[in-house]
Amino acid sequence: MKKELKLMKGNEALAEAVILAGCDAYFGYPITPQSEVLEYLSLEATKRTGMVVLQAESEVASINMVYGAAGTGKRVMTSSSSPGISLMQEGISYIACAQLPCLIVNVQRGGPGLGTIQPGQADYFQTVKGGGHGDYKLLTLAPSTVQEMVDFVDTAFQLAFKYRTPVMILADGALGQMMEKVQLPDQKERTKEIPAWATVGKTKDRERNIITSLSLDPHVMENVNLQLQEKYRTIEKNEVRYEMTDCEDADYILVAFGLVARICQKAAHLAREKGIKVGVFRPITLYPFPYEALNKLADNVKGFLDVEMNAGQMVEDVKLAVLGKKPVEFHGRMGGVIPSPEEILHKLEEKLVGELV
Amino acid sequence: MKKELKLMKGNEALAEAVILAGCDAYFGYPITPQSEVLEYLSLEATKRTGMVVLQAESEVASINMVYGAAGTGKRVMTSSSSPGISLMQEGISYIACAQLPCLIVNVQRGGPGLGTIQPGQADYFQTVKGGGHGDYKLLTLAPSTVQEMVDFVDTAFQLAFKYRTPVMILADGALGQMMEKVQLPDQKERTKEIPAWATVGKTKDRERNIITSLSLDPHVMENVNLQLQEKYRTIEKNEVRYEMTDCEDADYILVAFGLVARICQKAAHLAREKGIKVGVFRPITLYPFPYEALNKLADNVKGFLDVEMNAGQMVEDVKLAVLGKKPVEFHGRMGGVIPSPEEILHKLEEKLVGELV
Amino acid sequence: MKKELKLMKGNEALAEAVILAGCDAYFGYPITPQSEVLEYLSLEATKRTGMVVLQAESEVASINMVYGAAGTGKRVMTSSSSPGISLMQEGISYIACAQLPCLIVNVQRGGPGLGTIQPGQADYFQTVKGGGHGDYKLLTLAPSTVQEMVDFVDTAFQLAFKYRTPVMILADGALGQMMEKVQLPDQKERTKEIPAWATVGKTKDRERNIITSLSLDPHVMENVNLQLQEKYRTIEKNEVRYEMTDCEDADYILVAFGLVARICQKAAHLAREKGIKVGVFRPITLYPFPYEALNKLADNVKGFLDVEMNAGQMVEDVKLAVLGKKPVEFHGRMGGVIPSPEEILHKLEEKLVGELV
Amino acid sequence: MKKELKLMKGNEALAEAVILAGCDAYFGYPITPQSEVLEYLSLEATKRTGMVVLQAESEVASINMVYGAAGTGKRVMTSSSSPGISLMQEGISYIACAQLPCLIVNVQRGGPGLGTIQPGQADYFQTVKGGGHGDYKLLTLAPSTVQEMVDFVDTAFQLAFKYRTPVMILADGALGQMMEKVQLPDQKERTKEIPAWATVGKTKDRERNIITSLSLDPHVMENVNLQLQEKYRTIEKNEVRYEMTDCEDADYILVAFGLVARICQKAAHLAREKGIKVGVFRPITLYPFPYEALNKLADNVKGFLDVEMNAGQMVEDVKLAVLGKKPVEFHGRMGGVIPSPEEILHKLEEKLVGELV
Repeated sequence: MKKELKLMKGNEALAEAVILAGCDAYFGYPITPQSEVLEYLSLEATKRTGMVVLQAESEVASINMVYGAAGTGKRVMTSSSSPGISLMQEGISYIACAQLPCLIVNVQRGGPGLGTIQPGQADYFQTVKGGGHGDYKLLTLAPSTVQEMVDFVDTAFQLAFKYRTPVMILADGALGQMMEKVQLPDQKERTKEIPAWATVGKTKDRERNIITSLSLDPHVMENVNLQLQEKYRTIEKNEVRYEMTDCEDADYILVAFGLVARICQKAAHLAREKGIKVGVFRPITLYPFPYEALNKLADNVKGFLDVEMNAGQMVEDVKLAVLGKKPVEFHGRMGGVIPSPEEILHKLEEKLVGELV
Repeated sequence: MKKELKLMKGNEALAEAVILAGCDAYFGYPITPQSEVLEYLSLEATKRTGMVVLQAESEVASINMVYGAAGTGKRVMTSSSSPGISLMQEGISYIACAQLPCLIVNVQRGGPGLGTIQPGQADYFQTVKGGGHGDYKLLTLAPSTVQEMVDFVDTAFQLAFKYRTPVMILADGALGQMMEKVQLPDQKERTKEIPAWATVGKTKDRERNIITSLSLDPHVMENVNLQLQEKYRTIEKNEVRYEMTDCEDADYILVAFGLVARICQKAAHLAREKGIKVGVFRPITLYPFPYEALNKLADNVKGFLDVEMNAGQMVEDVKLAVLGKKPVEFHGRMGGVIPSPEEILHKLEEKLVGELV
Repeated sequence: MKKELKLMKGNEALAEAVILAGCDAYFGYPITPQSEVLEYLSLEATKRTGMVVLQAESEVASINMVYGAAGTGKRVMTSSSSPGISLMQEGISYIACAQLPCLIVNVQRGGPGLGTIQPGQADYFQTVKGGGHGDYKLLTLAPSTVQEMVDFVDTAFQLAFKYRTPVMILADGALGQMMEKVQLPDQKERTKEIPAWATVGKTKDRERNIITSLSLDPHVMENVNLQLQEKYRTIEKNEVRYEMTDCEDADYILVAFGLVARICQKAAHLAREKGIKVGVFRPITLYPFPYEALNKLADNVKGFLDVEMNAGQMVEDVKLAVLGKKPVEFHGRMGGVIPSPEEILHKLEEKLVGELV
Repeated sequence: MKKELKLMKGNEALAEAVILAGCDAYFGYPITPQSEVLEYLSLEATKRTGMVVLQAESEVASINMVYGAAGTGKRVMTSSSSPGISLMQEGISYIACAQLPCLIVNVQRGGPGLGTIQPGQADYFQTVKGGGHGDYKLLTLAPSTVQEMVDFVDTAFQLAFKYRTPVMILADGALGQMMEKVQLPDQKERTKEIPAWATVGKTKDRERNIITSLSLDPHVMENVNLQLQEKYRTIEKNEVRYEMTDCEDADYILVAFGLVARICQKAAHLAREKGIKVGVFRPITLYPFPYEALNKLADNVKGFLDVEMNAGQMVEDVKLAVLGKKPVEFHGRMGGVIPSPEEILHKLEEKLVGELV
């Protein structure tokens, strides 16, 4: 029997999914355009599952509470929007190094600075190259529908615990604010299992668990890094996710993530109506990035147009994937402006089709 | 008449250069391995030039004091080491967007997390790809000697004011702690000139100056971004700096920045003694990155070995420069371990020379 | 059937009593000599009753979390020691003005400043005269045994809710650290009742609840104050608590609170052995202070010696009670030094008995 | 030759006096009704005397910057209004214990909590009984005119250095906002003298200076307290200041501090017109309080009416002074309401004159 569909706002759907996923604690601080996450959880979560929902003093406090709570082996999370996520960079680096699971949601707005409260995608670099210091990676899921805002929550928690790593859901203000029909999962019980590594008091039958990101001896610290890098290699092997639409016969590929990928599908449709064979490649995991799939695709197409709501960030990874085999062009809008399908088609013709004819 | 040479520790030499550059204010918070900067300035600066030196409550406070003070058109700065710089990411994004000049010094340690107090280079991504949110760039100078720790201070301030942009000096703990002979510049007077854009009280003969990073209208915000991007294109055209050593006849190129470049020169020397023709390419500005120079070099060599004290960060820019023309290999050490010349030579032989024979 | 006695440390006994009282949330920050409260709750509370136990970023954050959580009508609390309590003064004033119930525990150390981690009583003024700004009062219970550390917890919560006011348990480091036999109460269930004034979401059948300490109109704000003062008059009428030992026939009265009262009882015993008729008066509520009882006592005795572990604070209230009827002398020790019974007897003889003979 | 009079707002006159007193640094955070102090200093101070003026992250940060800067032997200060002063209580206790000079200005508003931005006097207890923890005292000057807002600044600094103690100027929002004619003093040069105890770097000819408020050994800490108490006894002997108006032949005394004392003078005038002989007693130093002068006065009058803009705070000190010799009544207004002369006269007749007839 199929479950009923509900019409929900992206941020609220995500918050509902957090409760349904049996999340144990949320620590956050309000910021547009994602404040609904905290608000929804404040009203709903504690009374339904006993989940702790706390508005901390700041984003710095929030991420450090996530760090502390994650050490107990619980499902914990925070959410914010671009400037708030910047304030969390030190904490994220600590959590990654301490190898703790947690979920971080970034509902991006247009930057830099205070910027605008309209949507943006200009935190791609921050998310996948390492906004914080040191060599670490954030396993990153980029939803493009409200349904994925729901589905990726439990997936994110599972990946976080599988790899003991922070996982980011990188959305944007438009996704957070738009309403779509979603199918919600069943309520998961909050788990009572305590992972072997959790610091919840030493028992007699095991050694003391220690969670730290500090190792003063450089050789010990290098080993910590080698372990991290080995984990990242495993993630890169196992967890690459992407979606290809009409790429089999395509001459040109639009590459985009998140909401922009949906606009690109519309643009591809318009292109095919004009006789230009266009496909859409959508990375779902931004890290690990689907380098290989894109590289293969490069053998059979004439060129790529990468489209983002920023000044050109993911395009570097597209170039690293294609590595000179075919031209990689870029079109971006900034400041919270969302590109239209017509505009994308126009840029495709201008930058690639025209050029290559 | 040549000036006397002085034997100085990197951090202290930099701090001395700050005073000599006529810097107006320093705001910071102590962290190993750069605390000498704050300590030296505390003891020396105020009494010699009247410069304000203030230990703030935290790195978050420090960078926001820099933001406020930079708005007055003064020469202002902060310094820290990796985790402290992570805490500044929100503030840096604000300053970049508000188009204010300032100097930020990162004397990197091994990360991620608290990591180790030994040197590292794992903040490359954070520095040049945007550790903070939004599309902005940090003009970045990477010294490889204590003399450059001195020389880059005034250069950084000049670039910061020329382009109204934050400038980063990206050093590392080894450079900060090592002693070398330096030649110090003359004392510059603290300027009394007030830039036209500074917010120091409206005078009757001009409009009100406004410094902000917020523009709620997306089209206004997109224009802010277009201005920023135009500025970055100018910087990329005018300010690329790099150093090539023995690259003319080289078959292999070692690419490295900062201290590691010096070790690579020693490795190249060892290689030439064995008959392998090796040159060294050192980016001095990490942003703007010398893509073009490296791309040209790719036409005449057999391959590149990029060497860093991290898990592989600048190597992405090297690949973006070379774009598949020639193999680009990587060797990195982490956790504060400094690679030796012999080790680098060995890796070169293993990964490139052997391969290509 | 009598319940078993348990040997417990003061701080841990108090923490256990907090759980047994059905407390809903604790927010705090570690400081000697009361860190056991947070530690004990962290280990025991959540798993036994689901109570939220959170180490906040600072004492400022802790008290403001108490403020927010108290608004939901839950049993919430914080604890700290002297310097930490000073950091809470703004928040306490807000909670008192907003008329919210909560428990604050101060396990005093010797001050001022960082002082010493040894016990003290020098926060009497801060507690009862108003450490924060504005006209408000903290209903204050001063335990003198570990058993009272236990018993006063539930009493405090009951008083807090009865009068919608913050209640302070003012202990000291010696009480917190000493072990004594205690009888623990039964576990109270955490209540699900929501007080009518709680801000937990407006329901259709009532007006919006508003909790605030701000009223820009001075006449509205004066009314807020008049309500507060009326409440304080009721508290002063109903809630005065004190203990008199051997005061009926006494010529001299030792006045002391907390632990010092027990030492005074020993001193009184020594005095009676020497033929000096001494009683002990122990205020249990420091606010409301037992002015009337002391004033009555003044009719039948020759003088009072007030003994405190400070430079003389409660002695002002003793003088205000006695109002010149009989001499009121003071003996105090500072810096964490606990006066001995012999020393007290000696001071009594020196300052009163000798004088008055 | 007499200096010209200027018409100035209280807060600005005080700020101007700060500059003229050769103050070296101001650290603060804006809050109504005293933000003009920070604003005026920001615009004027640095450019005229090179004084450091810094808006810190919070009041907690401000007072700790004062603590640090005071250690260098400079003339340093902060200012705020009631809630902001509450946030400083920990820092004030530290500074008092570390025996450092500084100036703290409290331009009181109506409390408790956020209260109102109208004037109040409800921080009397906080100021003179010890808002912070531990046994310390704030030498407190209470101006009643804008001229005293000016004059007390230099006096406060002199007392602060004479006794190495924090000094408070306790004003209120009405004084801060009202405009009156003032005579300004001459510009004092910022001193270059460094006190022997300042921690500005050890020189070869003396021992290391240590500034701390921590002494783990209780006997050492008790000695610190004994020194403090000895200092306070000296201050109580030397620094009591008060003003008596028409008290010689008075039957009734109005006791009031600050602005209210001026209203009392008007009330006394009205009373004398009706044939009731009324004098006004105004404590200028709230600590040390003029106990002795008031006690003497009690011999010749019929009663006291203490008038405050609070629920009754200084009245406790008046009672401690009079000690039952004569009736002490109280009239107070709260929430920012200023009592009128007629109202005061009415209360005097109702509570004392009528009673005693």
